[in-house]
Amino acid sequence: MATNGANDAPKTRTNLISRAQRLEDGRALAQDVWSIFNAANLPADCINLGQGYMNFSPPQWIKGAASEALATVAANHYSHPRGRPRLRQAIAKVFGPQFKLGRDLDIESEILVTSGANEGQYSVLTAFLNSGDEVIMFEPFFDQYLASIVFNGGKPVYVPLHPDSTKTKPTSDDWKIDFDELRRALTPRTKIIMLNTPHNPVGKVFTRIELEKIAALAEEFNLLVISDEVYDSLVFDGKEHIRFATLPGMWDRTVTVQSAGKMFAATGWRIGWLIGPSWIMQPTLAATTRIVFCSNSPMQEAVAAGLEQMEKRKFLETQREEYYARRQVLVEAFDKIGMRYTLPEGTYFLLLDISKLTWPDDYPFPESVQGRGRDFKACWFIAMEIGVSSIPVSEFYCEEHVNIGENYARFAFCKDLDTLHRAGERLQKLVHYLKK
Amino acid sequence: MATNGANDAPKTRTNLISRAQRLEDGRALAQDVWSIFNAANLPADCINLGQGYMNFSPPQWIKGAASEALATVAANHYSHPRGRPRLRQAIAKVFGPQFKLGRDLDIESEILVTSGANEGQYSVLTAFLNSGDEVIMFEPFFDQYLASIVFNGGKPVYVPLHPDSTKTKPTSDDWKIDFDELRRALTPRTKIIMLNTPHNPVGKVFTRIELEKIAALAEEFNLLVISDEVYDSLVFDGKEHIRFATLPGMWDRTVTVQSAGKMFAATGWRIGWLIGPSWIMQPTLAATTRIVFCSNSPMQEAVAAGLEQMEKRKFLETQREEYYARRQVLVEAFDKIGMRYTLPEGTYFLLLDISKLTWPDDYPFPESVQGRGRDFKACWFIAMEIGVSSIPVSEFYCEEHVNIGENYARFAFCKDLDTLHRAGERLQKLVHYLKK
Repeated sequence: MATNGANDAPKTRTNLISRAQRLEDGRALAQDVWSIFNAANLPADCINLGQGYMNFSPPQWIKGAASEALATVAANHYSHPRGRPRLRQAIAKVFGPQFKLGRDLDIESEILVTSGANEGQYSVLTAFLNSGDEVIMFEPFFDQYLASIVFNGGKPVYVPLHPDSTKTKPTSDDWKIDFDELRRALTPRTKIIMLNTPHNPVGKVFTRIELEKIAALAEEFNLLVISDEVYDSLVFDGKEHIRFATLPGMWDRTVTVQSAGKMFAATGWRIGWLIGPSWIMQPTLAATTRIVFCSNSPMQEAVAAGLEQMEKRKFLETQREEYYARRQVLVEAFDKIGMRYTLPEGTYFLLLDISKLTWPDDYPFPESVQGRGRDFKACWFIAMEIGVSSIPVSEFYCEEHVNIGENYARFAFCKDLDTLHRAGERLQKLVHYLKK
Repeated sequence: MATNGANDAPKTRTNLISRAQRLEDGRALAQDVWSIFNAANLPADCINLGQGYMNFSPPQWIKGAASEALATVAANHYSHPRGRPRLRQAIAKVFGPQFKLGRDLDIESEILVTSGANEGQYSVLTAFLNSGDEVIMFEPFFDQYLASIVFNGGKPVYVPLHPDSTKTKPTSDDWKIDFDELRRALTPRTKIIMLNTPHNPVGKVFTRIELEKIAALAEEFNLLVISDEVYDSLVFDGKEHIRFATLPGMWDRTVTVQSAGKMFAATGWRIGWLIGPSWIMQPTLAATTRIVFCSNSPMQEAVAAGLEQMEKRKFLETQREEYYARRQVLVEAFDKIGMRYTLPEGTYFLLLDISKLTWPDDYPFPESVQGRGRDFKACWFIAMEIGVSSIPVSEFYCEEHVNIGENYARFAFCKDLDTLHRAGERLQKLVHYLKK
């Protein structure tokens, strides 16, 4: 019961209404990185490149579709737990061909709309994990994975991506899996492997060769693969996003996670979906139906409109160009002062190498960043002194591997160009704090 | 693995990717009552009084607020996991005084917005249940409770409400708890009691005396109380809805569940909230943050507008009168043919006593209603022959107590008057199928 002091539950010492153990095990009660680097704790004029949400709106034409849906009766009431038929049809039409099944997706059994991608992956874990089942995560991991696994009785097993520290201009492709290490992490209790491509926060777009090696192990160890592809529409530099489910034999054991929030700059709409074979989707439907019953209806209609019209409007192509331009603002800012970073080939995150950043020994750091990875201090210092917030990457590692993550700060570039330019200018001051 | 035949998981006989056991234990894979009595299985012109959603819209002025929110940037992006400040403030203002704390609710620690009331109660269970903890439910129970308890490792313990079968014109107040039976159900492993007032499907509005007895047991056995009060705005006949948390000592151990969907005829918006002391809310926040991260933002703004304006617009009073008129249509229809029913003093459900209903011995019932309570056949017969769908109440009982529930069919009157009048006329034909 240690992590959070106050527990004013009615009690005698011998008779306490205790919290569930899963909260402690899932790191859910510790102060998380988001609340430490929350705007409320930082200077009022700090530019927020910490959190991954846009400071711009979804397209007007999609918002118009939301208002149209609100004007009906049906779209204000419960949707089918599988999702609204119009949305499932739009998903099948747009994404079905990408799965290369030689047939359409079955909207009744192979597509499931969820209350955000997050709730989707949570429901898969609810549907499949029994106590003690092991789940492989690659570090750095999206921090929601850990609690989602533990809450459902699973045991997280960590396999780090290893950055290439010899390159002066690394890209996200220079973060590699050690496949011997991955094999050693697999046991008879391993049930699920969580893959994330394009990868948050590294930006790595896994290559076909890497995916083939993962696929071979998934086959050998008979694993279910949760392939979190929520950044699938944000890939740069001619890199190809490969759907894991399209590798030979992998459709049958893979559930692909997608996000309307990421795709349409609508992170607050809480609409995501899962695509996979019916043996995965049916139990997952049973889980999500009990957890949330269904997802919000008007936003489902709006997302359906988004998918229906995006090809005609060349929405994804245009958006990708916009994100490329946003990435370049940060890239140029760091190039100008000669700071090392990982060039992300996907997502809207960039990892800055802060291992050469220094600060005064007596700098007044708050307690919340003491005793954590070095990156917690670096991010705090940058926010306070430079006026740009970022997120320390060691948060996304198990304790044993903090030493890898603590060299990096994550900057989100899902912000308008003006904001990024202002941030870029401020970041020039970092040059004064670099070790020679 | 029995309940659903097809499991086309990649496997050898000895190496199957199994579904989680919680799905079987939580009745989550069995064909549920909603899919049996789904419109798709019934005659095309069947009037749907089965499912509890409205065939009318939320008020125009609330929908307008949703469109206004969509026009901003912030309301399209992530909300704080606690909920948007404007909504929490509105909740505190409207409902705070009803909790009689002699102070305002603390919007940071005592209010938590959730993705529907359903996800709210699920999160409480995630936050507090350890394996084997027992949870008391009163039968008939809202069917989502069972899976929510079991998915989180809890053990449901059933205590039936007993109808008074001697009265020819019973009200929902004639369904009573046997408090000796309740006491016998309590054990050292009992951790939570789930209360639902006004009660779905009985319509019972628990009296102060009943609530006091429950409170005494909650105190004696040191229980956490989840008080599901989602129908709190729908109480008739001068009956008073009493918030369980206002009973002496009960604030400290009670979390109250409310629903914007029920309150504003917006079941598809998926916005509910929890009110309770911080020791309950803080772990529940930790749970909901990992399950859904946050609830959808534009609908939160709309609900805030609804709460801000509802007093001035006398919205709840008007709505209550409208629901009263809706209830009367069913009441008069059943009175006219002398059928017995439970007059609901709250909610929008009415239980029809179908124990005297007969049907031909050779009536062609589908397999899905065979081997279930007698009410499954009755509801099927009424839907097919009379053209009005309802829900068999034995679904909301454990197997041992099916004999109580199988005498009732639940009719929802959250429909417009025209629809209810048409249903009432059709239901007159039931007179031909009654035992003398």
